[in-house]
Amino acid sequence: MSDLITLHPEAQAQLFTDARTANAFTDEPVTDEQLRAIFELAKYPPTAANTQPLRVLFIRDGEPRERLLTHMAEGNRAKTAAAPVVAVLAADTDFHEFIPRVFPIRPEMRDGLAENPLAREQMARFNATLQIGYWLLAVRAAGLAAGPMGGFDADGLDKEFFADSSWRSLLVVNLGKPGPDAWFPRLPRLDYDDVVRHA
Amino acid sequence: MSDLITLHPEAQAQLFTDARTANAFTDEPVTDEQLRAIFELAKYPPTAANTQPLRVLFIRDGEPRERLLTHMAEGNRAKTAAAPVVAVLAADTDFHEFIPRVFPIRPEMRDGLAENPLAREQMARFNATLQIGYWLLAVRAAGLAAGPMGGFDADGLDKEFFADSSWRSLLVVNLGKPGPDAWFPRLPRLDYDDVVRHA
Repeated sequence: MSDLITLHPEAQAQLFTDARTANAFTDEPVTDEQLRAIFELAKYPPTAANTQPLRVLFIRDGEPRERLLTHMAEGNRAKTAAAPVVAVLAADTDFHEFIPRVFPIRPEMRDGLAENPLAREQMARFNATLQIGYWLLAVRAAGLAAGPMGGFDADGLDKEFFADSSWRSLLVVNLGKPGPDAWFPRLPRLDYDDVVRHA
Repeated sequence: MSDLITLHPEAQAQLFTDARTANAFTDEPVTDEQLRAIFELAKYPPTAANTQPLRVLFIRDGEPRERLLTHMAEGNRAKTAAAPVVAVLAADTDFHEFIPRVFPIRPEMRDGLAENPLAREQMARFNATLQIGYWLLAVRAAGLAAGPMGGFDADGLDKEFFADSSWRSLLVVNLGKPGPDAWFPRLPRLDYDDVVRHA
C-alpha cells in the first residue's frame, strides 16, 4: 500500500484493491434505503456542466424481472434471475431539460442542446458512463457487491422498459451481498508502462 | 451521513461529499510517484472482459503543454497552462491486442474484435469512460484535486499527440493541490426521484 495515497487504508481495500465483481449473491435483501444511500454518495462527483444524465431503473422480483431476463445474454440469465435487485443504468438523452435547474449560470445551454440531438446523445452517454464509474464504487461503499454486465440486447431492453422515454440503457448490474463462490480468480491488470505515456 | 454506508466517514468526505472540482492549483509539484500510485488504485475496478482500454498521456511544462493549449477551449486555457500536470485520458481502440494477456479464459475474443473496428471503438470508449470515473476518484484518494474539462478539440488533439497511435482522447484533466479560490459554489444535484424508477 502506497504512502502517497491518503485515503484511509480500509477504504482503499473496500473500494479498489480487495473489492471484486460478484457472480453470486446471498438471499439477504437490498433495501430501498440502501439504494437511496448509494445515490446520495454517487450524485456528487463531476459531470460536464453538472448535467448528471445517469438514470437508474431498479428491478425487483416478479414479472418485470422475467421481462428483463429475455434481453440478457444467455450466460448472464441465471445470475440475473437470482440477484436480490438488478439495476438498469441508463443515459437520459433529454437531460438538457434539467439544465436551468442544475446549471443556472448558463440556462441557455438547454436551448442549444434542444436543437442538436446528436451532440446531446453523445454528451448523455459519455457523462452517464462516467457516473456509472462513480456509482459502482458507491455500491461498494454501501458494503454491497456489484455484478456489471454488458451482455444484453440494449435495443430490446429499451423497447421493453423505455419505449415512451428518453432513457437509453448502458449497463445492467446485479446487486447484493456476495454469496458462496461469488468470485472468479482475479484477472491480470495491465502495467503502468502499458497504459501511461509522458510528453 | 447515512449509517447504511459502511465506507469510513473520512473516505466518504474525501472521495464524494466534500471533494470538489478544482479550477486553480498551488505550485506544489505532482510527482511521477503520485501518478503511479493513482494508477495502482484505479486499475482495479471492473471493465468488460477485463479489457482496461483507458490510456493516459501526462503533459508537464514546456513545448508539449504549449501544443496542448492550442486545442483547449478558450475558457480552459489559462487554468490548463497553470496546472502542475495535465492528463489526457484516452481510449485505446486497439485494446484487443492485450486480450490474450488480460482475458486468458477467452483469448479468441481478440480475433473477433480485430474484424470489427466499429464494435471495438464503442467498447473502447465505453469502458475507458467507466475507468475515468474510477480514476477521478483515485486522484482524490491521493489527496489531489482534479479539474476535468470536456472543452477541447478532440480531433485536433488526437492529430497533435496520437497521430501514429490507436489512442483517442476523451477528457483532459488538470491535476494538483487546490489553490486559493479553487472552487466555484457547489451546483445543485438532481433528486433521487428525478433519477430513479422502480419496476
